[in-house]
Amino acid sequence: MSQENNNIIRIAVDAMGGDFAPEYPVLGAIQAAQENKGIEVILVGPGKEINELIAKQNVSLSNLKVVNADEWVTMEDSPAEVFKAKPNSSLNVALKMQREKEADALVSAGNTGAVLSHSTLRLGRIQGIGRATIGAELPSIKGSTLVFDVGTTVDCRPNHLVEYAIMGSIFSKNIYKKDNPKVGLLSIGEEKTKGNELTLSAFEMLEKAPINFVGNVEGGDILRGTVDVVICDGFVGNILLKMAESVLDLFRYKMKEYSEKGFFQKIWAGMMRGTLRKILKKFDYQEQGGTPLLGVNGISIIGHGKSTPYAIKVMIFRAEEVSRLKINNKIELALKENKLINK
Amino acid sequence: MSQENNNIIRIAVDAMGGDFAPEYPVLGAIQAAQENKGIEVILVGPGKEINELIAKQNVSLSNLKVVNADEWVTMEDSPAEVFKAKPNSSLNVALKMQREKEADALVSAGNTGAVLSHSTLRLGRIQGIGRATIGAELPSIKGSTLVFDVGTTVDCRPNHLVEYAIMGSIFSKNIYKKDNPKVGLLSIGEEKTKGNELTLSAFEMLEKAPINFVGNVEGGDILRGTVDVVICDGFVGNILLKMAESVLDLFRYKMKEYSEKGFFQKIWAGMMRGTLRKILKKFDYQEQGGTPLLGVNGISIIGHGKSTPYAIKVMIFRAEEVSRLKINNKIELALKENKLINK
Repeated sequence: MSQENNNIIRIAVDAMGGDFAPEYPVLGAIQAAQENKGIEVILVGPGKEINELIAKQNVSLSNLKVVNADEWVTMEDSPAEVFKAKPNSSLNVALKMQREKEADALVSAGNTGAVLSHSTLRLGRIQGIGRATIGAELPSIKGSTLVFDVGTTVDCRPNHLVEYAIMGSIFSKNIYKKDNPKVGLLSIGEEKTKGNELTLSAFEMLEKAPINFVGNVEGGDILRGTVDVVICDGFVGNILLKMAESVLDLFRYKMKEYSEKGFFQKIWAGMMRGTLRKILKKFDYQEQGGTPLLGVNGISIIGHGKSTPYAIKVMIFRAEEVSRLKINNKIELALKENKLINK
Repeated sequence: MSQENNNIIRIAVDAMGGDFAPEYPVLGAIQAAQENKGIEVILVGPGKEINELIAKQNVSLSNLKVVNADEWVTMEDSPAEVFKAKPNSSLNVALKMQREKEADALVSAGNTGAVLSHSTLRLGRIQGIGRATIGAELPSIKGSTLVFDVGTTVDCRPNHLVEYAIMGSIFSKNIYKKDNPKVGLLSIGEEKTKGNELTLSAFEMLEKAPINFVGNVEGGDILRGTVDVVICDGFVGNILLKMAESVLDLFRYKMKEYSEKGFFQKIWAGMMRGTLRKILKKFDYQEQGGTPLLGVNGISIIGHGKSTPYAIKVMIFRAEEVSRLKINNKIELALKENKLINK
């Protein structure tokens, strides 16, 4: 990682975010604090319970702190209502710390809609950004493809797609070290004339944006890795992401079905399992280190509800990287160059 | 197959449709005519070449005919322009035969856009249908899921989605023998309030339609097989279908990458290949027997450009089934029951 500054980066972890909270967030935070002395990890949530979990691990880390919060957002809470209903939630307390400069970033594997709404309300948006965006890293032949947006805004306007493209391009360049990342607009044909009303308008604007826009790409180009960044409406992106997540379920089912055909098939399927797990690892979203929420005036890394301790650790390191590389400053600068948005 | 009538069904095959034309369509037609004496297969295309290919197979089939057409639509032809530019194309001649009651159905693995536009122009639409739709069969844990629309209409109106739902439901019930098929609306959350402008409006209408509407489904539900029929805008459906088609490409690449890691891995990957091919067979669109074009006042079965002779044969049998089961009559009847469309 290139470190553009050497300050300690303070990362607030929502200890009550995710299906296995507080255990997995606490374990992930401990691993991160152990491995990386350039960060301070702040676990936000019910103090007693968190301290007991830390005590069980028999560690004493000077860069691991606990901040108490007695409420928390559940997966069932409505993102629109919970902000007011639970002002002392671990998520809200963690974000207040960031707004008050007591933390540099947030990591949460909790209710995605709530992390989005709380982050937008607490941190505000970067100047020039109309809509924040959540991206996802999908596996591809070339390694991975970043897709923006995967569910933040369902009825996008063309300028939102241009914002996503600029932010996604900067993210790809800085975090994935892609030199001049290729950006494609998701559509139903390569030709400029193919698409729906939204993409046809966005195409014109993307051609003039300060990015390496290569034109339309199709559904098959994501897994094939034709481009580094794929831009789409949040409705399409969310459906695509959930479909990609389900590929592994179908595959596991088919393997199970095969193994139940007989004794030989059972042994054989068992033998193949380990290799296939390695090959299909990139499809396992529980192991992935969170998706960035770009466009807010701060740092929020959002993880899968089923995030493992390893995934939480990776999210914490990702938060550090986004902070050190000053991604938000770079986005702000690029927006100023793009006269279409920043009138 | 349940046969509701015992007439000979005459199926016109576009011998010049597909990447391996005329060879694969001719081979598929021969196989179909050999296996099924309840059909007459009419190969439409350059007569001399087709007859030579038939002669090579050393067969003489009374239910296999050849009709000459000296032009053909290529994959590069613009669907909008080729209708006028090539009036004697094999596709157009085959459809003219259907309109003039000299054939009962069309099978083509050619340019999808051209098959769609030619079919709509030559056959017209079923009364009450605003837009025809192309469906796709995607693999699922339960067997398969039908998705409508996969690319016919990119900016749908809510009533188009209702038409797709009614047609898809009838197709699923009659062709896939599903009793009271479950129909889901593709969206970004199960709740009625989740979706974009289009799906929110369509939801209300679908609740009143003469189908077994179970509400919204998400991207992951297609491969999981939660419902029998998934309804979406052609833009979303096309992107989904192409993404699903690329899963096998990514998987093949990952296997190759693994096998190149060393001698042991190469042997091991080779051993696994056969089993995996069986397991992933449903993802192989080249082997699938075409997708239905529903809503036109006739029968058009559209195949993948890379259709194998086996796939062509399956398409021919599918065309026969759609004809015998009078799917179009059933659609017309159901539309009359749905007051929302048929004002």
